[in-house]
Amino acid sequence: MNQPSTKPAPIKHALSTRREGDFAAWYQEVISEADMAEESGVRGCMVIKPWGYGIWERIQQVMDARIKDAGVQNCYFPLFIPLSYFAKEAEHVEGFAKEMAVVTHHRLVADGKGGLVPDPEAKLEEPLVVRPTSETVIGAAMARWVQSWRDLPLLTNQWANVVRWEMRTRMFLRTSEFLWQEGHTAHADRDDAMTETLRALEMYRSFSEDVLAMPVIAGEKPENERFPGAVATYSIEAMMQDGKALQAGTSHYLGTGFAEAAGIHYQNREGQQALCHTTSWGVSTRLIGGVIMTHGDDDGLRVPPAIAPHQIVILPMLREDDGDAALLAYCEELRGDLAKLTALGERTRVLLDKRPGKATQKRWAWVKKGVPLILEIGGRDAANGQVSVLRRDRLWREDGKVNFAAMTREDFVAAAAGELEAVQESLHGEATARRDAQIERGVSTLEELAAFFAENKRYPGWVEMGWSRPTGAALDEVVAKLKALKLTIRNTPMGAAVPAGTCAFTGAPVVETIYVARSY
Amino acid sequence: MNQPSTKPAPIKHALSTRREGDFAAWYQEVISEADMAEESGVRGCMVIKPWGYGIWERIQQVMDARIKDAGVQNCYFPLFIPLSYFAKEAEHVEGFAKEMAVVTHHRLVADGKGGLVPDPEAKLEEPLVVRPTSETVIGAAMARWVQSWRDLPLLTNQWANVVRWEMRTRMFLRTSEFLWQEGHTAHADRDDAMTETLRALEMYRSFSEDVLAMPVIAGEKPENERFPGAVATYSIEAMMQDGKALQAGTSHYLGTGFAEAAGIHYQNREGQQALCHTTSWGVSTRLIGGVIMTHGDDDGLRVPPAIAPHQIVILPMLREDDGDAALLAYCEELRGDLAKLTALGERTRVLLDKRPGKATQKRWAWVKKGVPLILEIGGRDAANGQVSVLRRDRLWREDGKVNFAAMTREDFVAAAAGELEAVQESLHGEATARRDAQIERGVSTLEELAAFFAENKRYPGWVEMGWSRPTGAALDEVVAKLKALKLTIRNTPMGAAVPAGTCAFTGAPVVETIYVARSY
Repeated sequence: MNQPSTKPAPIKHALSTRREGDFAAWYQEVISEADMAEESGVRGCMVIKPWGYGIWERIQQVMDARIKDAGVQNCYFPLFIPLSYFAKEAEHVEGFAKEMAVVTHHRLVADGKGGLVPDPEAKLEEPLVVRPTSETVIGAAMARWVQSWRDLPLLTNQWANVVRWEMRTRMFLRTSEFLWQEGHTAHADRDDAMTETLRALEMYRSFSEDVLAMPVIAGEKPENERFPGAVATYSIEAMMQDGKALQAGTSHYLGTGFAEAAGIHYQNREGQQALCHTTSWGVSTRLIGGVIMTHGDDDGLRVPPAIAPHQIVILPMLREDDGDAALLAYCEELRGDLAKLTALGERTRVLLDKRPGKATQKRWAWVKKGVPLILEIGGRDAANGQVSVLRRDRLWREDGKVNFAAMTREDFVAAAAGELEAVQESLHGEATARRDAQIERGVSTLEELAAFFAENKRYPGWVEMGWSRPTGAALDEVVAKLKALKLTIRNTPMGAAVPAGTCAFTGAPVVETIYVARSY
Repeated sequence: MNQPSTKPAPIKHALSTRREGDFAAWYQEVISEADMAEESGVRGCMVIKPWGYGIWERIQQVMDARIKDAGVQNCYFPLFIPLSYFAKEAEHVEGFAKEMAVVTHHRLVADGKGGLVPDPEAKLEEPLVVRPTSETVIGAAMARWVQSWRDLPLLTNQWANVVRWEMRTRMFLRTSEFLWQEGHTAHADRDDAMTETLRALEMYRSFSEDVLAMPVIAGEKPENERFPGAVATYSIEAMMQDGKALQAGTSHYLGTGFAEAAGIHYQNREGQQALCHTTSWGVSTRLIGGVIMTHGDDDGLRVPPAIAPHQIVILPMLREDDGDAALLAYCEELRGDLAKLTALGERTRVLLDKRPGKATQKRWAWVKKGVPLILEIGGRDAANGQVSVLRRDRLWREDGKVNFAAMTREDFVAAAAGELEAVQESLHGEATARRDAQIERGVSTLEELAAFFAENKRYPGWVEMGWSRPTGAALDEVVAKLKALKLTIRNTPMGAAVPAGTCAFTGAPVVETIYVARSY
């Protein structure tokens, strides 16, 4: 953590918890102090508040444009899935997950004691499951839609809420209900389906790097971590500031198994019936958790400008006197000029915060929310055509003071778009440097692996090592050994060179690289 | 129905059902032939297909911008609402609706016969209701968020799916699951809450008129049609081509009742605790049903350009020979030029449809989907710098032929934005003229009312009449009389002059105007 907080400086941070003290508590404090989300009173479900939801809207907008550019069309499929659809899948899939919300009644009735109960008269003949993911119901639609090779590829996506009954929940990272997009595609053959699987993976990788400023490793998950029923599962993995890995998106090549279960056949060019090859891929509100744990610091969140609901906030230092009108007029004009700029390929998003309240309090609220650029403007600034600028990613001066820079208004307007792009790049650079510094490459035995993670480093990071890619029972053994160390295999990076040597787990020759880490 | 179909012309319409023959069957055929949605196999739930969902996305984009412009912030609240929240409401509200999906279990387990059942071990202590609307859960959040007058007004909105268990469903108009936005706001006093209620109503009115090209009457619903627990409910009412009314959006002033149930108190400027006044307002995917029944004709849908996912579709007449490359290059350049235009305040949305298939078939597919402008371009057109243009709202010539116009490419590019605006205006004008022609004003007794709707007109329209605004039991009597005629009171239009005369229902003096109609 190459943060100013490690210096013996007189800095008075905005949060009460330090990352290096208690990362989990710090995470909760950021969410609370940045006013992003809160517990809802409904088990495992959160309320996403405007700042958190605004970040999600930005993620949706940018991702949705990329999904559409790839020729994928948005649809909407039912929230409820008949139980029988899952029975089909359960037969088919060993690792079938059963923790799901089940609707059994369609009416409430008074219980005679002032309360309500599900009406016994209104029991559903067939229970309905609240979708945990939509392969089954979309597969049934695809079976209707696909007749001939001319209908392929069929490329669909939906933005939706899904529910997985989670025992231990953590806001944004693991909640019973969450928001996501799920892409589902059907193809004529393996090659085309695999191309789509990897296109989606690359879309997620570049989105994470360019938009979230969050460096990730794109690669294939080991067999034991595949989506149940998938032939191959790929992921992007990001390193959080506590060194743990976060699986931030997945893309699955499903082979013909799901098509077989759902009956997705097509007539090929030769006039014969064939099974489709299908894929699915998704990212969720979990990405917001990743952004917090990648870019947050001891003063709160830092939002990459590309997904900041407001990129620049103007804070007039109102005094509730006659001077306020001129000050507000100056700020409004400045807002108008800034809102005409283009940064990161889009119009800048500028807020003039006119709410009553002390300017200092408002400043710290925006600091904790992580707005990239904060402008404080007093009456004298307005009179002199000045602005006072704070870059959120360079909050503190060496002397422990808040790092405001005074500029002329003209200079700031001329520089603002470049500054936003600089913040975006700087956050990405900082996160990449930290990630790279925390990847250990010298490990070649299980003992060394255990020693690395046992060392008294609080946040040890990841180990990059070779392995022999065992399968079946041999893999189970490896997974068990790692589990004993609270470790998991994250993925095999795409296109990495095959290292020489012997597998630390099996003694067989190394055939590929993996990342081993603690994880969320 | 001032449509060409009433002429003795040799027109061969694209649909097999006529509006004047069987409106309900025609509606289903439009949805199916325009490929907008289909039954999902899940009771009461539909699959919204790309063309239908694309229209919804456009509605969302434009409406969301207007919601945000009003200072309302988007949030996301839980899908599940604990049963006890409804018990509170049930006590409070007489007309409490009980048809809701109830989650009672959180796990599936094998039944030993190859199937799955809800796991009896995983029964929830408190059942969860899938939200039919979110007043209760948002009220609970507001109670946490509002402390002082400084926190008011609190203006929130969410885009979400909701579930109301419907016995008889019809796609887009009434489905068990549907998509909507729900605005929820809290205010310091009645005036501020009422201003917000009417602001939302006016937002819906102008959105319907300007964006959906769907004329509506904005007004207050009679007491018997209020949202349960509301002090006043307002609606926009649109006339469908069969003369029935569609309630297309509602806005409710909830008084302090919901605030009391949820405990939304604030400290006022005088330091005293006071109850908030709350509002809620929503529109849903039902709007798409309204668009179909307002603008559709015997050739399918006609989409107003402001919400058309593609406003212009270019159809190259491919011949699968060497000439195709030059044709496609010409079309691609044309697409690029058109996509730079601004129409209706936004960049135009242009699709070059390069899919294989006969141009005529593709033309009729786009006609049925209702794309405002269709361009067919053959090799000779490309060579001569020509285009052949079809305006969807003027599909047929007098002689029964398809109404293509040949133009130079330059002329079309120069005219295209204006043409789109002309289509938007023309659809609005046509719908308004039809609606106005179908409002009857000469009715002053119950007998005349009955006679008007009993007359052998297939689609009689609405009656505008005065009434004495009875309440309580007197109103119940009126409602019962109307119900016997299959009629409902739609609303009292905002700002209408009070007509003179005697109420046809009560004999008391008339105090306001109402619309009486059959309805969806």
